[in-house]
Amino acid sequence: MLSRIAILGTGLLGTSAGLALRAAGFGGRITGWNRSPEGAQTALAMGAIDSVCKDALQMARESQLVLLATPVFSILDWMEQLAPVLGPAHLVTDVGSTKAQITAAGARLFNQPGKASFLPGHPMAGKERGGASLAEAGLFRGTVWLFTDVDAESRTPECAALVAEWRRWVAALGARTLDLDPVRHDELVAWVSHLPQFVATALSALLEEEVGDAPELKDVGGRGLREMTRLGASPFSMWRDIAHTNTEAIQEALLALEQRLAHLRENLRTPALREEFGKANRFRRE
Amino acid sequence: MLSRIAILGTGLLGTSAGLALRAAGFGGRITGWNRSPEGAQTALAMGAIDSVCKDALQMARESQLVLLATPVFSILDWMEQLAPVLGPAHLVTDVGSTKAQITAAGARLFNQPGKASFLPGHPMAGKERGGASLAEAGLFRGTVWLFTDVDAESRTPECAALVAEWRRWVAALGARTLDLDPVRHDELVAWVSHLPQFVATALSALLEEEVGDAPELKDVGGRGLREMTRLGASPFSMWRDIAHTNTEAIQEALLALEQRLAHLRENLRTPALREEFGKANRFRRE
Repeated sequence: MLSRIAILGTGLLGTSAGLALRAAGFGGRITGWNRSPEGAQTALAMGAIDSVCKDALQMARESQLVLLATPVFSILDWMEQLAPVLGPAHLVTDVGSTKAQITAAGARLFNQPGKASFLPGHPMAGKERGGASLAEAGLFRGTVWLFTDVDAESRTPECAALVAEWRRWVAALGARTLDLDPVRHDELVAWVSHLPQFVATALSALLEEEVGDAPELKDVGGRGLREMTRLGASPFSMWRDIAHTNTEAIQEALLALEQRLAHLRENLRTPALREEFGKANRFRRE
Repeated sequence: MLSRIAILGTGLLGTSAGLALRAAGFGGRITGWNRSPEGAQTALAMGAIDSVCKDALQMARESQLVLLATPVFSILDWMEQLAPVLGPAHLVTDVGSTKAQITAAGARLFNQPGKASFLPGHPMAGKERGGASLAEAGLFRGTVWLFTDVDAESRTPECAALVAEWRRWVAALGARTLDLDPVRHDELVAWVSHLPQFVATALSALLEEEVGDAPELKDVGGRGLREMTRLGASPFSMWRDIAHTNTEAIQEALLALEQRLAHLRENLRTPALREEFGKANRFRRE
């Protein structure tokens, strides 16, 4: 029975996970650590964690499940630090945005005889701005929580039970779980998550140069412009790690969109425009 | 005093204008015409118009103000047909998405001694799907309604009063009015409205090819993907006219975005990525 969870990184996702676990009826202990003490205090004040721990490794040792909720490079760092100090009764899982490198590190550092278990996870939830203060218990409701578990067979019955229990908690938070191969995961999210983000970033940066000095002109764009640039507010700190750990798939998606925009640009007055709108309409059919 | 309005085209915008006028307390007569009789009957049933007229020219003659609420090419056609049958007591205005050609046609066909007046307008409101049944009285609330009036001096006092009264009604619908030069209008909306639309179309069409056969993968993208592709549902019929009447400005904006995306693609692992995120963050600063 899972009764001691440690959340390593009480930002938007980590704090929301704590709030959501409480709202779903989790009655055990939730401890939290955060790089900036303010973020941990905010999570504590919101009721997402029961206590703040200053020593992340000690906190992890005293828990059954460690939720790594930091950007990707920091997750990889913590995996290196946690692997030597945890044992076979511990389960480590994460919320990192790319999964090939993290899943490979999990196989190398965990999921072996005498080692802790690692379950690679990725909730498709978030906001354009981060931080504990924006956390919500309902953040995961109606979303998809991906897993890229390739080491399921190697687990002890004790750890397999912890994995099964964590999956049930994820479902209790309102998310639908979906299992993917880690490389396929990174290719897929390059299209449906990373490409939309980088498009919003490029569009926002371009418009900042074109109309940034005339705020009243932004209002002219209305809802469409607001939606198409909302992700422009996303933090570099998180997306740098994604850009570094999924570079080729993102490059492929960006190049494909550049070509698609050029095709539109060259066909604004030809029948090919109708075909593009038809294809786009089909993507949004209800 | 404005007491007889004719809405020519009871689609999303025309029907919403009728509903909004009623909600704002307009007590005069509102008649409607629509190419498809079903659209006119829907507007009638919703209370946006008092009666359906089968003869658009007769309806226009019997009104004081004609609101042209069709796609751009159809507005240009109606302007040609209306100019010979209306007189100096009539005001024609429109909701067309591009304004250079329409404003030029207004100067050529209207706004002259013995002719009706024409006031070029463009409410920055809409939805990704059209039709009377989606109309709302609150569609214009909080939006900007642009005017590109270059013939204000040539009007009779009677028509100038009608123009002033229509501007007051637009404000009563909840919209903020903003006056722009027509060429500047088309350049501006190419950046803040047309570019976001064509990006959403290109992204949606591309993703239809990549993941269209696996609907469950669309769910993975979550809110960001939904927002970035919502405008993918927009109708070709309306956007063809925009693409034809604002081609060069849209081409310039599309090319600039292609170059921006290529810049991002080539700098996913360099410090230039931070600069792009910084610039995008500034566009979305609160």
